[in-house]
Amino acid sequence: MTDRDKPIGVFDSGIGGLTVLKEIIREIPHEHTIYLGDTARVPYGIRSAETVIRYAFENTQFLFSKDIKLLVVACNTASSVSLEAVMQQTSIPVIGVIEPGAKAAVEVTQSGKVSVIGTEATVHSGAYARAIRQRDARIEVTSLACPLFVPLVEEGWIDGPIVKMIVEKYLSDINTGGIDTVVLGCTHYPLLKGVIADVMGDGVRLIDSAVETSREVSRVLRTLGLERAQDAGARREFYVTDSPERFSKVGEAFIGQKMEHIEKIMIGN
Amino acid sequence: MTDRDKPIGVFDSGIGGLTVLKEIIREIPHEHTIYLGDTARVPYGIRSAETVIRYAFENTQFLFSKDIKLLVVACNTASSVSLEAVMQQTSIPVIGVIEPGAKAAVEVTQSGKVSVIGTEATVHSGAYARAIRQRDARIEVTSLACPLFVPLVEEGWIDGPIVKMIVEKYLSDINTGGIDTVVLGCTHYPLLKGVIADVMGDGVRLIDSAVETSREVSRVLRTLGLERAQDAGARREFYVTDSPERFSKVGEAFIGQKMEHIEKIMIGN
Repeated sequence: MTDRDKPIGVFDSGIGGLTVLKEIIREIPHEHTIYLGDTARVPYGIRSAETVIRYAFENTQFLFSKDIKLLVVACNTASSVSLEAVMQQTSIPVIGVIEPGAKAAVEVTQSGKVSVIGTEATVHSGAYARAIRQRDARIEVTSLACPLFVPLVEEGWIDGPIVKMIVEKYLSDINTGGIDTVVLGCTHYPLLKGVIADVMGDGVRLIDSAVETSREVSRVLRTLGLERAQDAGARREFYVTDSPERFSKVGEAFIGQKMEHIEKIMIGN
Repeated sequence: MTDRDKPIGVFDSGIGGLTVLKEIIREIPHEHTIYLGDTARVPYGIRSAETVIRYAFENTQFLFSKDIKLLVVACNTASSVSLEAVMQQTSIPVIGVIEPGAKAAVEVTQSGKVSVIGTEATVHSGAYARAIRQRDARIEVTSLACPLFVPLVEEGWIDGPIVKMIVEKYLSDINTGGIDTVVLGCTHYPLLKGVIADVMGDGVRLIDSAVETSREVSRVLRTLGLERAQDAGARREFYVTDSPERFSKVGEAFIGQKMEHIEKIMIGN
């Protein structure tokens, strides 16, 4: 197998990263992909940095054993606390979801006022704010944790009056003061994009890290000459660390297609 | 140390079991208690039975190492799938939260129609329905998973219009057909008792498994002659498997007092 024919490895704490995989498949459909959802240890967003780093190492080791050519850390929490540590373990390219989202926010904002929404752990890490300010120190970044968004999406509640009230309750504080760009700093949030856009109004642009990350993956493969030939069908493999049933059922809304070949594996604990 | 002076061990997947500990402290304040919150692996409610049983064994081993006189499995998910397996590991009494709640429901219902609400795993296990029907096979039991209740409570949203709408959305289906008893089959739900009672109306009695479990603990200690003398102050120890900060912050609403001496330990993973 040439390097070009090796798969792209993607891991997340659970099903959220499927929104990133969906965009990767849309952007570069001919690439083989291997997805690992660490569903036995989800959610990462409420765990300590030390614990998340350990989990990221273990997930990474599994994907390396599958001889991948590029690794995507499709989890904001893991990207924000473990990306550098993971990069030091390997010579293949490693792409997280923070940098692509931060880059897009810097390009899009006119007012210079950006808000980042995500899990407690992502917000607490300050990773987006740092990544944005490294590119343009003049940008004002506010961050807000919205802990109910993930369970809402996993319950399949992505529109309707209750969802709108919850989104309004969280976002009313940031919907003032000239913010014109909101980064969806959690892989579950693209499923709430409609309601969030509605609540924030026309003057605010939403940055979908999943879309930005898939573009970055495509760009890096092209730059390194690692693109697979476009004429052949692609393999899709899925691995989970707890039972595949729930992953399969809930995950379909995230990836927008049926998932076959979901295999349960043991990692770490 | 005599057997009477040994502590009661309590474990839960996280902070929910603190509602059970709170009732134990209220019922038998002179007993020493050791609480283990497996916060690194919370929530159990979305995991497979096989995984939950493994976690329960590991938690139990830790508490046994502390020389406890009685074990409380203060987690509905763990009680419903792992209680018998845990009992086979030890000769000390083991009390789960299912049996006490089921017993109270059977005593309270007049219409013979009972509803049990809980996490997906608890409902899926059918443990409450089995426990109720073993006591009285004529009782009709319906079960309903309310997956958003736990994140709501953990976010501190326990009243107000959004909470009421969510409770109504879940419970509208069971609030018909003559049900007069609802079992709160999750240790987080006592914090929503006010809103649930309001939505269900006066004709419905709520069974709080935490209260029923604490009575059972007291009764078993009395029966076995294992009660501690009432004249001495009691020790409260808390252990968690992830960082104590969040446990301490969120948990205070559950236990209704400050928690001191929270120690982080490593278990399993």
